Amino acid sequence: MDPTHIKRFLIGKPFPTSRDIHERLDKVRALAVFASDPISSNAYATEAIMSVLLILGSAALSMTLPIGLAVAGLVLLVISSYVQTILHYPDGGGAYTVAKDNLGTFASLVAAAALLTDYILTVSVSVSAGVRAITSAVPAAFEYRVIIAIAAIIFITWINLRGVRESGTVFAIPTYAFFGGVLLVILIGLLRHFGLFGVSPITPVEQEVAASRSLVGFAYIWLLLRAFAGGCTALTGIEAISNGVQAFKPPESKNAAVTMVAMGAMAMSLFVGITFLATQLHLIPQEAESILSQLTRRITGGGFLYYWVQFFTAMILFLAANTGYQDFPRLSSFLAKDDFLPRWMQNRGDRLVYSSGIIVLAAVASAIVFVFQADEIAMLPLYALGVMLSFSISQAGMFHLMGRIAHLKPGETMRTSVTEIHYERNATWKRVLNAIGAGATFVVFIILTSTKFVEGAWIVALLIPALMYIFYAVRRHYERVAAALSTGDLSMDDITEVANVVVIPIADIHRGTILAIEYAKRISSDVRVLSITTAPEIEERLLRRWNRFPEITSDIQLITIEYDYRDILNPLVQYIEKLNREEFPDQLTTVVVPEFIPEHRLASILHNQTANRLRWRLREHKDIVIIDVPFHIDSQL
Amino acid sequence: MDPTHIKRFLIGKPFPTSRDIHERLDKVRALAVFASDPISSNAYATEAIMSVLLILGSAALSMTLPIGLAVAGLVLLVISSYVQTILHYPDGGGAYTVAKDNLGTFASLVAAAALLTDYILTVSVSVSAGVRAITSAVPAAFEYRVIIAIAAIIFITWINLRGVRESGTVFAIPTYAFFGGVLLVILIGLLRHFGLFGVSPITPVEQEVAASRSLVGFAYIWLLLRAFAGGCTALTGIEAISNGVQAFKPPESKNAAVTMVAMGAMAMSLFVGITFLATQLHLIPQEAESILSQLTRRITGGGFLYYWVQFFTAMILFLAANTGYQDFPRLSSFLAKDDFLPRWMQNRGDRLVYSSGIIVLAAVASAIVFVFQADEIAMLPLYALGVMLSFSISQAGMFHLMGRIAHLKPGETMRTSVTEIHYERNATWKRVLNAIGAGATFVVFIILTSTKFVEGAWIVALLIPALMYIFYAVRRHYERVAAALSTGDLSMDDITEVANVVVIPIADIHRGTILAIEYAKRISSDVRVLSITTAPEIEERLLRRWNRFPEITSDIQLITIEYDYRDILNPLVQYIEKLNREEFPDQLTTVVVPEFIPEHRLASILHNQTANRLRWRLREHKDIVIIDVPFHIDSQL
Repeated sequence: MDPTHIKRFLIGKPFPTSRDIHERLDKVRALAVFASDPISSNAYATEAIMSVLLILGSAALSMTLPIGLAVAGLVLLVISSYVQTILHYPDGGGAYTVAKDNLGTFASLVAAAALLTDYILTVSVSVSAGVRAITSAVPAAFEYRVIIAIAAIIFITWINLRGVRESGTVFAIPTYAFFGGVLLVILIGLLRHFGLFGVSPITPVEQEVAASRSLVGFAYIWLLLRAFAGGCTALTGIEAISNGVQAFKPPESKNAAVTMVAMGAMAMSLFVGITFLATQLHLIPQEAESILSQLTRRITGGGFLYYWVQFFTAMILFLAANTGYQDFPRLSSFLAKDDFLPRWMQNRGDRLVYSSGIIVLAAVASAIVFVFQADEIAMLPLYALGVMLSFSISQAGMFHLMGRIAHLKPGETMRTSVTEIHYERNATWKRVLNAIGAGATFVVFIILTSTKFVEGAWIVALLIPALMYIFYAVRRHYERVAAALSTGDLSMDDITEVANVVVIPIADIHRGTILAIEYAKRISSDVRVLSITTAPEIEERLLRRWNRFPEITSDIQLITIEYDYRDILNPLVQYIEKLNREEFPDQLTTVVVPEFIPEHRLASILHNQTANRLRWRLREHKDIVIIDVPFHIDSQL
Repeated sequence: MDPTHIKRFLIGKPFPTSRDIHERLDKVRALAVFASDPISSNAYATEAIMSVLLILGSAALSMTLPIGLAVAGLVLLVISSYVQTILHYPDGGGAYTVAKDNLGTFASLVAAAALLTDYILTVSVSVSAGVRAITSAVPAAFEYRVIIAIAAIIFITWINLRGVRESGTVFAIPTYAFFGGVLLVILIGLLRHFGLFGVSPITPVEQEVAASRSLVGFAYIWLLLRAFAGGCTALTGIEAISNGVQAFKPPESKNAAVTMVAMGAMAMSLFVGITFLATQLHLIPQEAESILSQLTRRITGGGFLYYWVQFFTAMILFLAANTGYQDFPRLSSFLAKDDFLPRWMQNRGDRLVYSSGIIVLAAVASAIVFVFQADEIAMLPLYALGVMLSFSISQAGMFHLMGRIAHLKPGETMRTSVTEIHYERNATWKRVLNAIGAGATFVVFIILTSTKFVEGAWIVALLIPALMYIFYAVRRHYERVAAALSTGDLSMDDITEVANVVVIPIADIHRGTILAIEYAKRISSDVRVLSITTAPEIEERLLRRWNRFPEITSDIQLITIEYDYRDILNPLVQYIEKLNREEFPDQLTTVVVPEFIPEHRLASILHNQTANRLRWRLREHKDIVIIDVPFHIDSQL
């Protein structure tokens, strides 16, 4: 089967570039595509707070709700900041764009490096968490966890390569099913808790009040901060929409902002609901059963709804990876556009998605899954740092932007390097919110980094500068290339002259080499046929055949070089180099390579790859033009 | 570090072809190179006979010596046959050459396929056996057995790539040390057994006469035959010298024949000695200790000599692999010379060895070691069949040759297709010996195949025809190629005409593309610059730059094709195909590809590989000549 057909079958037929606008997402699909990560956080965010507090004993769990509300407040702050960002940067503005426009290149690259790292980890961690859900149910599958995880990555990659609308359609079901299921559980839980509408009331778990360790002063606050930082995993992925504004149907900004608010409302209603009920029911984190599972079982009694929630929890943990697939390719295309990453990362594939970015993401995430053997617990210390750092940078950027807006008079308009800003009311108040947001997320970043440094956060601390070095190196390379190719000061004398000489390396006289000689004679009057002879009988045979075709060979030179080794490429290249250096310095010297091409690809293993190898060697010389004169043979292996 | 320097360091400096004669082997080194396999057989051949006989109970072990003598007789027969072969085929004549000259192509290819299979297995089996010797001593190493085995293969490959003389020097020590050690053990054993020179006599093991199962008639004979077949493992590798006559210093035939006889004498003196003493001392095969170890321990009492023999047993089991390295590359070079294998297998490397064959052998043997997880017991059913089949074919060939010689009158001479034969005395007697040899080895082949068929011999039974199919397919391919390239009936009209047109695909006007345009203008008056534009702004920019250089662009055509997809290669190729098909049918159409080459290899990942990909696509079209005009940029990543 033709590879093109296989590709068509897998990816679907190519979309014209003009179809872009029709591939945009409506709000319902967009929410499914972008929200899987933040909504899935509810599977573990409350538990992350509680398991830190448990160090102080179960009595300390009463702090869960206040800390949860603080996290929810921070989410509110971040979301309102990002809604502002979306409205001010309608072409899409993640932390990278906002920082570039307000804080300069350096800050924008810090944000970009942090985010790219985190997006890759989103995929590795989510998929591994999904696999753990499977292997918990089917322990025999544990041995195959890496293969299952990589198969899941391939599946998600495949759906994403088929286009953004299609992935929206596929991923909508688990996202909404999870949201609906958990929401129903919370509603029933609230009804039963408050005994409304005559439903059977629910009783809290009999709590054995464990001997509470008491910490004082700084140690106590540090622990509360760590619990808060744990809860902040609920924030991962909420910036996705800000990068992907251009994936929305017009009016892009407005739709994106509405979707962002909806996403925040959905994620937070679940988070606050779960946290409230978990505290009221006196649930305690347990090794064997997650808080969400305990909660659902207790409220529903373990019927159909329980299994529904459990099943879609596993599904959405898998799909949280999809947020990485939305963000990574888009952010890397922005970086590529600015020459900080290879330019081909901004090319869009057959289905108008950033295919190269998707494939790079899949490859790197798979490598991480392999290295960590699909153990997401081991990866967690590396995770969520990047996103916090980028939140902080992004809000610092918005703080700066609001400062500029605050200086505008009513009706006044100003262009920044990326966007256009107008007078706004309450700019100073918004600024204050941005400052609080930037500060709070920065504190969380510091907590995450310091508490997890030894366990793995140091890797990220090294990776971010390394990535930034690469960004700058790539940019420098493109700048040099642009300078070298520039026609700004081109004069006709700069163009390298073409020498009137053609060299044809041959091993024997046959139809293929005769064709090459005829071609060479058409383009030059100084044709030199070059042959390396490794044995006298080879030279004799060559001369005999040479003399048989005087109409071809009479007006050209035959140069034979006797050579007592077997690597004939060396004397060939040496002759050509010497010719170019001594007879035609600084001119283009032409080499005609008679290339023998069997019709059947496989058959080429039966032939010396002399033509190919010669081409590779000669490529290193800047003044050598290579002409391939093909001679095709209709042979089968 | 430059790859050439690394190669020099590993392989040594290249030898000129004329040095060939100085790289030849003297008899002492030749014996070490060729004899490691047959001499190493003594580590297990006697035991192979005894462990079959043990099925009948320990009383049956008294049959060991007669069977051992029968094996020795067969070896004598085979060696005398091969000495004849060497003298009659002084250019080297393994089973392949002999069969080709006497029995035709088909028989020669059967022999070749059988031998190649066996040579590869020689390497896999020997190395795995050597590794077992190590892991028996150091059980902790068992986990790493595959890695150790592959490391050993790499080591032997490396030594062989350094040249045949050098490998002779390296491998001489273990071969002679093993031979000397075992010979000394046998001599001491004989002295003690016969109580000569007043040495302390040795007493046989107290034998518990186990209840002997009695088999009658055919079953008994079958068992004896199987024991005989087991002993025939002593024959593997003895044909090596016949292939490698050209590796000897002149007079090649005589030196090779002398070495062959010496090798036979050495191998058989050990084999008969071990078999005799093992029977006399009433040794019984045991799981935990080999017969050779039991024998040595009993005779020497376990001192220095015992450890010497054990150590060099392990060494020589490893090095038996080297016989495969002598045979496989040489035989495959013979096949390649006759166009039955890729021709590059007859190329000799820097050190005048058949490097390609050595590397192919190492790769396939490593793959087998990997598949069988270095378990040589599992490989054994595949082993030794091939060599027996080739013995049988070879001796059948010699039988035919002797028939032709027997018809010559004194003083008469005749040329066969490969060699020259003269009148000889006793040709008929030699013929009878050949017939017996052919028959006996064929019987052993049948026994080996039938007793081991289910355990793995079927793989070889499938592999030999598969290899023969490949041989014929390769030959057919070369025949077609030769016919297509033949200049026998070439007339000037057959040479494809060159169309006066040049197409230059470009994406932008810069120094690189301008150079390509200037080159194209030199070779054609009809230059067409072709650009695929995927967005209106790209087209505008191109036209603006195009018009800035009238001195370059005024007399040539610019063709722009608007395209609403991103895979610009397709419309490029379609335009060129259409041009060739409609405007210049059956003429060579030239495409100039401006190729942008960063000085630093790594930097090429930062660029679209459009030029490379275009070249690959256009290669499929027989009437398209591709000119690479390079534009080098001195940039660093």
